[in-house]
Amino acid sequence: MNKVAVVGVHQTRFDEHWDKSLRDLAREASLGAISDAGLDNSDIKSLYVGNMSGGRFVGQEHIAALIADHAGMNPIPAVRCEAACASGALAFREAYLAVASGKYDIVMALGVEKMTDLKTQDVITSLMGAGDQEWEASIGLTFAGLYALMARAHMNKFGTTQEQLALVSVNNHKNAVGSPFAQFPFEITVKDVLASPIIADPLHLLDCSPISDGASAVILVTEKLAKTFAKPAWVLASEQATDTLALHDRKSLVEMLSTKIAAKKAYDEAGIQPKNIDVLEVHDCFSINEILCIEDLGFCEKGKGGAFVEAGKISKNGEIPVNTTGGLKAGGHPVGATGIRQIADLVKMIRGECYNRLSVNNGLALNIGGSGATANINILGRELKV
Amino acid sequence: MNKVAVVGVHQTRFDEHWDKSLRDLAREASLGAISDAGLDNSDIKSLYVGNMSGGRFVGQEHIAALIADHAGMNPIPAVRCEAACASGALAFREAYLAVASGKYDIVMALGVEKMTDLKTQDVITSLMGAGDQEWEASIGLTFAGLYALMARAHMNKFGTTQEQLALVSVNNHKNAVGSPFAQFPFEITVKDVLASPIIADPLHLLDCSPISDGASAVILVTEKLAKTFAKPAWVLASEQATDTLALHDRKSLVEMLSTKIAAKKAYDEAGIQPKNIDVLEVHDCFSINEILCIEDLGFCEKGKGGAFVEAGKISKNGEIPVNTTGGLKAGGHPVGATGIRQIADLVKMIRGECYNRLSVNNGLALNIGGSGATANINILGRELKV
Repeated sequence: MNKVAVVGVHQTRFDEHWDKSLRDLAREASLGAISDAGLDNSDIKSLYVGNMSGGRFVGQEHIAALIADHAGMNPIPAVRCEAACASGALAFREAYLAVASGKYDIVMALGVEKMTDLKTQDVITSLMGAGDQEWEASIGLTFAGLYALMARAHMNKFGTTQEQLALVSVNNHKNAVGSPFAQFPFEITVKDVLASPIIADPLHLLDCSPISDGASAVILVTEKLAKTFAKPAWVLASEQATDTLALHDRKSLVEMLSTKIAAKKAYDEAGIQPKNIDVLEVHDCFSINEILCIEDLGFCEKGKGGAFVEAGKISKNGEIPVNTTGGLKAGGHPVGATGIRQIADLVKMIRGECYNRLSVNNGLALNIGGSGATANINILGRELKV
Repeated sequence: MNKVAVVGVHQTRFDEHWDKSLRDLAREASLGAISDAGLDNSDIKSLYVGNMSGGRFVGQEHIAALIADHAGMNPIPAVRCEAACASGALAFREAYLAVASGKYDIVMALGVEKMTDLKTQDVITSLMGAGDQEWEASIGLTFAGLYALMARAHMNKFGTTQEQLALVSVNNHKNAVGSPFAQFPFEITVKDVLASPIIADPLHLLDCSPISDGASAVILVTEKLAKTFAKPAWVLASEQATDTLALHDRKSLVEMLSTKIAAKKAYDEAGIQPKNIDVLEVHDCFSINEILCIEDLGFCEKGKGGAFVEAGKISKNGEIPVNTTGGLKAGGHPVGATGIRQIADLVKMIRGECYNRLSVNNGLALNIGGSGATANINILGRELKV
């Protein structure tokens, strides 16, 4: 397989975009990434789009061809990839394989979701399409409910506290301050989280990522081309794994096997260990999930994630900075766009061009679909070898 | 890029399956393909699923992980690919690239759609997600309406007749007789077509493919592995192109640029010309589209497709046998499954194991999304070189 690097990135602000449609957001992100790379629309040879539920959110399927059209890239091949909230990273990985295969030399991976056109209740119902429709959605479970079950199990088994969960959101909000792209770029306190309404016990409103509109895009190129760019960010590993769709089919509620399997493969592929990773982007759809991510990626022992967070080890100057641009919680979570946004943020930090002023040699992004039925891990670095 | 072959195929009957859910159909197709290849579930390294609109048809997204789970294939990577009615061929092409890249040696491409759980009117509304939601669906256009515009333009410009359109359906129904998989395995006459209700003038009910449930699956392997199988069918070309999503944005209503562009690339890639193709599987979602496909693939001059059909050149013993197992019209059209079914049928004919008794050296499958915004062409052959 050929080596692949990312040479262009862009995202729209993640927000409630009442004045922009799905295609507007996608066009803004795609043209921004092309411009960032110093390329032209006509240079892009293939397009991969991560989008979870355009059909239900805005009545639009066939989204990749729509974006190729609307952003002036047709007649190139255009493929929509979907695995719920991991759709973005999936699109990235397919784009990576397309370049690694030797078929294409310049490929765009784009993520987009337009969620705020529906009533909140309908968004929540649509999002349950990521879970098991026949066995979970049909009995009234929501994603807050599924993650609440995991949170409660983690609390019961390991003594994880509500304050520790809250500190995840506190950290991510703190990191979003100053971000030009974040939906909620302001600080919150533990007290704020605990005083916010309970959505699904023990998860409060401020333990939950928001409903958002937005798009993000990155451009991947071959090794040969990458060397003509000033600051390529190399793809050191791109791995993915699945687990049962329904939470009740798993042996454990307090770990995600998909993450553990994908992580092992990714570490082997990149020749790296957690201790050598500089920065993490993980999937804090709910605060408990950031704790599960940190544990399952091997950054602390299983069950110690709450204490790890409480000890400040995930802060920007901690042992392993996590979600340093706000994560899903403060940055926003237009589901299909999130996986690409995570990667775009790693690229900016590898270049030393992120608003958060972090300059790193490498970073890992973990994008999760549903309650963990899909986990997708990408490791990027400044050099081809770590 | 590595060479790739198909070594296992299976499909469910395409039908109204009141007793089977989406996951049941997908499991039946996947286990059938694994069995056909003489492999075990655990041999499959990655799964690609073509599905257009599980979210709207049955409330289920995240379908690839669901199928990996339900067919006993997790924790392998699983990716849903979508481009409306071309979703199946898209999944096949991504599976092909995954094997060609060297990343995986055995990959499954599966297509599935469960459409009959909704009322017909809701299915038709959902299918319009394949068109431009803002500019076409919003004014009440349906896909029958879009193809009726193309049919009328073709009739006005080239003198194509309603009888010629009807003969497409007559041919496809004739070919479905004896099929164990077809939804409508019986003959119809031109008179039947013309006497059937008008859906969107000039298209009658029997010019239109049906609403169906079904799944189909194929298994792709590396060249090295393929040589250990008795009758591998080699992928000689896999190409795709896009056009504007909205029909009104095109210069012509009587040709599909996406097909023409993908066809040129595919012919170049395979080193083959139309005259050397033995059999065609094309996208007869509406009778007019089979005529457009034949013309745009270069099997006859533009505008002469109606006469080509009328002269019997597409019949099983004609110049170029087309849709020899019934096509979408008589075989059924569970949208995400169709592209994989086409390829599975080519493989059976290349093996000389199809119920239609055709034994061919090669074949071409053209799967189209929407009104032509996506065209995906795969050419398969008995030998690695034509």
